[in-house]
Amino acid sequence: MTVASPVSRLRPKSLQEASLLEGPQLLLRKMRGMSSNRSLTWLACVPIALLGLGLFNLSARAAELPELNAAFLANNLWLLVATILVIFMNAGFAMVEAGMCRQKNAVNILAKNLFVFALAVTAYWFIGYSLMYGNAFWDGILYYGKGGALGLFFDATVTPDMVKDGSLVPTVDFLFQAAFAGTAATIVSGLVAERVKFGEFVIFSLILTAFIYPIAGSWKWNGGWLDGLGFIDFAGSSLVHSVGAWAGLVGALLLGPRIGKFVNGKAQAIPGHNMSIATLGALILWIGWYGFNPGSELAMDQYVPYVAVTTTLAAAGGAIAATIFSTLTSGKPDLTMIINGILAGLVSVTAGCGNLTMVGAWVAGAVGGIIVVFAVAAVDAAGIDDPVGAFSVHGVCGIWGTLVIGLWGVDGMDPGAAGIGLLNGGGITQLGVQALGCAAYAIWTLVTCWIAWSVIGAMFGGIRVTEAEEIEGLDIGEHGMEAYPDFASAK
Amino acid sequence: MTVASPVSRLRPKSLQEASLLEGPQLLLRKMRGMSSNRSLTWLACVPIALLGLGLFNLSARAAELPELNAAFLANNLWLLVATILVIFMNAGFAMVEAGMCRQKNAVNILAKNLFVFALAVTAYWFIGYSLMYGNAFWDGILYYGKGGALGLFFDATVTPDMVKDGSLVPTVDFLFQAAFAGTAATIVSGLVAERVKFGEFVIFSLILTAFIYPIAGSWKWNGGWLDGLGFIDFAGSSLVHSVGAWAGLVGALLLGPRIGKFVNGKAQAIPGHNMSIATLGALILWIGWYGFNPGSELAMDQYVPYVAVTTTLAAAGGAIAATIFSTLTSGKPDLTMIINGILAGLVSVTAGCGNLTMVGAWVAGAVGGIIVVFAVAAVDAAGIDDPVGAFSVHGVCGIWGTLVIGLWGVDGMDPGAAGIGLLNGGGITQLGVQALGCAAYAIWTLVTCWIAWSVIGAMFGGIRVTEAEEIEGLDIGEHGMEAYPDFASAK
Amino acid sequence: MTVASPVSRLRPKSLQEASLLEGPQLLLRKMRGMSSNRSLTWLACVPIALLGLGLFNLSARAAELPELNAAFLANNLWLLVATILVIFMNAGFAMVEAGMCRQKNAVNILAKNLFVFALAVTAYWFIGYSLMYGNAFWDGILYYGKGGALGLFFDATVTPDMVKDGSLVPTVDFLFQAAFAGTAATIVSGLVAERVKFGEFVIFSLILTAFIYPIAGSWKWNGGWLDGLGFIDFAGSSLVHSVGAWAGLVGALLLGPRIGKFVNGKAQAIPGHNMSIATLGALILWIGWYGFNPGSELAMDQYVPYVAVTTTLAAAGGAIAATIFSTLTSGKPDLTMIINGILAGLVSVTAGCGNLTMVGAWVAGAVGGIIVVFAVAAVDAAGIDDPVGAFSVHGVCGIWGTLVIGLWGVDGMDPGAAGIGLLNGGGITQLGVQALGCAAYAIWTLVTCWIAWSVIGAMFGGIRVTEAEEIEGLDIGEHGMEAYPDFASAK
Repeated sequence: MTVASPVSRLRPKSLQEASLLEGPQLLLRKMRGMSSNRSLTWLACVPIALLGLGLFNLSARAAELPELNAAFLANNLWLLVATILVIFMNAGFAMVEAGMCRQKNAVNILAKNLFVFALAVTAYWFIGYSLMYGNAFWDGILYYGKGGALGLFFDATVTPDMVKDGSLVPTVDFLFQAAFAGTAATIVSGLVAERVKFGEFVIFSLILTAFIYPIAGSWKWNGGWLDGLGFIDFAGSSLVHSVGAWAGLVGALLLGPRIGKFVNGKAQAIPGHNMSIATLGALILWIGWYGFNPGSELAMDQYVPYVAVTTTLAAAGGAIAATIFSTLTSGKPDLTMIINGILAGLVSVTAGCGNLTMVGAWVAGAVGGIIVVFAVAAVDAAGIDDPVGAFSVHGVCGIWGTLVIGLWGVDGMDPGAAGIGLLNGGGITQLGVQALGCAAYAIWTLVTCWIAWSVIGAMFGGIRVTEAEEIEGLDIGEHGMEAYPDFASAK
Repeated sequence: MTVASPVSRLRPKSLQEASLLEGPQLLLRKMRGMSSNRSLTWLACVPIALLGLGLFNLSARAAELPELNAAFLANNLWLLVATILVIFMNAGFAMVEAGMCRQKNAVNILAKNLFVFALAVTAYWFIGYSLMYGNAFWDGILYYGKGGALGLFFDATVTPDMVKDGSLVPTVDFLFQAAFAGTAATIVSGLVAERVKFGEFVIFSLILTAFIYPIAGSWKWNGGWLDGLGFIDFAGSSLVHSVGAWAGLVGALLLGPRIGKFVNGKAQAIPGHNMSIATLGALILWIGWYGFNPGSELAMDQYVPYVAVTTTLAAAGGAIAATIFSTLTSGKPDLTMIINGILAGLVSVTAGCGNLTMVGAWVAGAVGGIIVVFAVAAVDAAGIDDPVGAFSVHGVCGIWGTLVIGLWGVDGMDPGAAGIGLLNGGGITQLGVQALGCAAYAIWTLVTCWIAWSVIGAMFGGIRVTEAEEIEGLDIGEHGMEAYPDFASAK
Repeated sequence: MTVASPVSRLRPKSLQEASLLEGPQLLLRKMRGMSSNRSLTWLACVPIALLGLGLFNLSARAAELPELNAAFLANNLWLLVATILVIFMNAGFAMVEAGMCRQKNAVNILAKNLFVFALAVTAYWFIGYSLMYGNAFWDGILYYGKGGALGLFFDATVTPDMVKDGSLVPTVDFLFQAAFAGTAATIVSGLVAERVKFGEFVIFSLILTAFIYPIAGSWKWNGGWLDGLGFIDFAGSSLVHSVGAWAGLVGALLLGPRIGKFVNGKAQAIPGHNMSIATLGALILWIGWYGFNPGSELAMDQYVPYVAVTTTLAAAGGAIAATIFSTLTSGKPDLTMIINGILAGLVSVTAGCGNLTMVGAWVAGAVGGIIVVFAVAAVDAAGIDDPVGAFSVHGVCGIWGTLVIGLWGVDGMDPGAAGIGLLNGGGITQLGVQALGCAAYAIWTLVTCWIAWSVIGAMFGGIRVTEAEEIEGLDIGEHGMEAYPDFASAK
């Protein structure tokens, strides 16, 4: 990489000294000065321009910190571990989705899942994080919260007060939230699988993680209006899972079903190509959820293992109920239903993992496991093609998991916490608020995603691959390669 | 889900106020009142009945806790991480077993592993946990230990004393133990693979994790008679691994060998279908063992990394010895023997990971790696069909790992700890106690499992699939699906 | 195992009492006394001889420890978790390499990766650890550092001062370093894949992890001459990744390209056989890197999550840049390029993860992502066959990651840290030192590995399999088995 030598003097001493407009102007001025328009030269501008913005050397000085105390160490250590587990869920989603789809589209699904997480982290860092955790109704300028103007300027300074209070440091807080944003995008992937164009899906993911998800998230997790009403969603059954599912549903509706999915209006089974990796993916997701749910306590305390237990019991309940129920209805225990039962149980407890008794969690998961069997059939009956059952798992069970708090939720994780549900003496208020939250997330996501998918489709000549490409497989069409070139295909 | 409105008044104010018999009576009364017998309606009764039992709102009030100290935070955080690692071992077992069996049975194996963990957690929660950690010879009533009457009532209350003493909270203790119970059940799966009926295996697993394993476990880990004699089994070479292996051996003997395994009394190699996932599984098990062994310290202290080192060295020793030894005997390094060598090393150090020097651990693992090569041949020679070598790994090396403490074990993990083995000055007592423990676990498990498998077989018309189903593959017969439908099969 | 009874009296009271020469003499005397020369009998000598050396019972007494404080607990807990994550990277490397190579060599690649980690741990324990962390220019005798004479005697004693100072205990320090040694060996595996003989590769790995890597590592991480010059390599872009890559490059050059890689001097694409496991491997490596980089802080403090963020952003930057750039140059987003872009980003930030701003890290990763696309083409153009792009990822990006600190690095992780790079006001000194370090590692590794590979080749009749074996596949030739025997091969 060649770098012009006098650049470093362009670097302002501190960000504060440079006006916010000066940065982009410097960038443009530099770009105009370039004689060549080859992409490499342009790319070389990026670090130079960032130097101009002083971004390689932000100037706020860190204060001396007091000795790191037990709470500070444990909280930050636990959240880092939880974040790593949530990031590992990307592997789980990739394996479940790829395994449950056909061989000819495996590369496409793997590429989507892999690339979208990289993109989601970047988009959430640039924009989403400050949008989601902005201070007021976004501080005059739209995005200006924890993250300063534009997320990428978020202030990583660790203050003495943070240490004294045992607070999370800004970096681990950001990374945990960024991993969640990635999850929402990954759920979409399942609903639009085997027919969406790669580039168009990528652009949608960018919009989702930069704007749609963060604004929705701020309603609850940044103390927004839903939080003010008393809405409960501990780890995101609604915020993350249902938002991802609604976003994907719009995509699935606009795309239409895969060729061959419906014959004379009747849904056909299109079996996945690799049950080994799908099962592995389910188990990776299971352990990843121990970051997702217990991590949402945002601290290490006596409640964290409690959340791990409710999460486990719900997964177990979901698996058992879905297996029994699908065996009763279809005669044999279907492995994809065991997988979906586990995931349904996990999603069903994601909102209430801190507001259900252990028994309540197991039953919530079990009901989720039954719901998912019905939901898969209902989605088929509605003529919607959801290749891996993502709407049934993340959408329907996301709603169920949000509502169940209003049925038999309790007020916290200590034994003897008061009932807040309709069925255990808490009245109907909580159920109403939970339902309102579900509706709000559905409407917001449906409307914004309809616009987003439609605009993308209009700009790029549709979001669906050609019929010929779909039949041949997206791996060849979108990526020019095969997932398993050394193996002979069946038929 | 429709719920009858007047149910909530059935909820007693506290569990203590309701007699233990009243609960089931309420349940039966409700069920008799139902007019429809469709399964959905019945299932809807479950949460309602549980409300009747007050299980969505146990009433013991939690006390105010003192500030969480470093030991409390570190101990609980570490145990939670260890638990997650042990749960991840399910993915390892599933991949090793599926990869080492044939393609036509992959769905069945994956389904068994996935479902059985969900079931084991539930069964252990309902019954096993309080049975295993009951206070006395089970407090008059059989199951009445840490978990109150029936495990699912186990008291999750965190007391001020727990915080002061840095104790594990009950939830993380339960979850860690439940994950261990799941491991025992998973080991069985390997021994009965490719010929056992799905439903019958599931019922056996339920009995194993609810009754057989917990009672065996209490002998040592709940301060039972073996513990009183000074028996050492730090993380369960005998308690978990040999129990699982004996339970599976009975199944394998009752099932008989797979079709084609023995031709004219000579064992035939039946190669596994997917070495990639088998290898991945071995590596997942390796890291999962860092939860299994170091987690068994049940606290975070200076000894935890020591156990991680002995565990690592034994795995390394096992891999190296098994590879060299199988190359010497068969001419080429067999990948399945490298995998089994690693697992043999890990099992061989599971009992003694806190009672062996580092050199002692490496050698114990290496001897285990050699033993497993012999044992696989011996099992074949005995006409027993153990498809993935589970008895050799978990049974034979489980015993070896228990005995080695009596050969060159030391009294703790500090350098300079006194020798307690026959060969390092500790006399023969420890070796005798270790041998007694091995025998006790063998007898208990063989007897109870023979009864359990036999009763299940008698009730459901045998535990083995039909010859036609076995030849076609259990995936079609038991589950109506294929693991890799897009790939052409060899032949 | 039969053991002669009077052996235990041969055990000296302490190692210190026995002269270092006495041990091997005892061993020889015992061996000479054996009447049978069958391998089993010989193997039985090993534990007996070790007893003779007192290795099952080292005698230094541990002191009473003060109460374990928060820093001690958090530091050791975090390092143990980080170590487990680094060890998990073995699964990632195995899956990426196996997936990107052909089906007929899958067993060989899996066996290499699995076995070499076991071997690396053992070799590093015996020799490497004390060589790398020796006190002076190796204390008169060559290997005599932290680990005492020969690494396997390393002193695991936890002293009261360690507890007071919150130091890492020796066991976790050893295990973390051993996992790093294993990584270096694994990188080599990729460069020599699909044509190297199994045994010869194993011997090379032994030499690498016992001697070549530890000596190179001591230059920086044991306060050696490069550290004295101010060379920065936080987690090992140069020390681990470039050393592994240079070592492999020598192997690749001596082996020559695979049959069919170059036709009339033009490089041919040889597609990998399993993109599902390759993608899984990349995601496992991603999360494993959270042990590799943040773990290299060697403590739990406010900087650890910062390192996790720079690591994440670089991976994201690498993925995005490589994907865009490879799409621009070849028309379609290639999944292997997304994978290599992620890995390139991760390697590019490994040296500077504690010396780059967040923006600086993202850009460093992105530049790495572009570099890797060029590098893969350049390696092909140079007529070198690097089957999985390991030299491009670990070698070229390892150098880039080392150099970028000299371009826009900063002096630490606090916001406002002073620039130390050429482009952000730090002058040219750091860049010069970084370049010197890169050159030193290149020269050392190239020279020593050339000797090692050549000697091995000379001793064992070459390091490459026969042409017939290569065409048939190394799985049959080296291991006598297939990875996927139930599947039909293409063509």
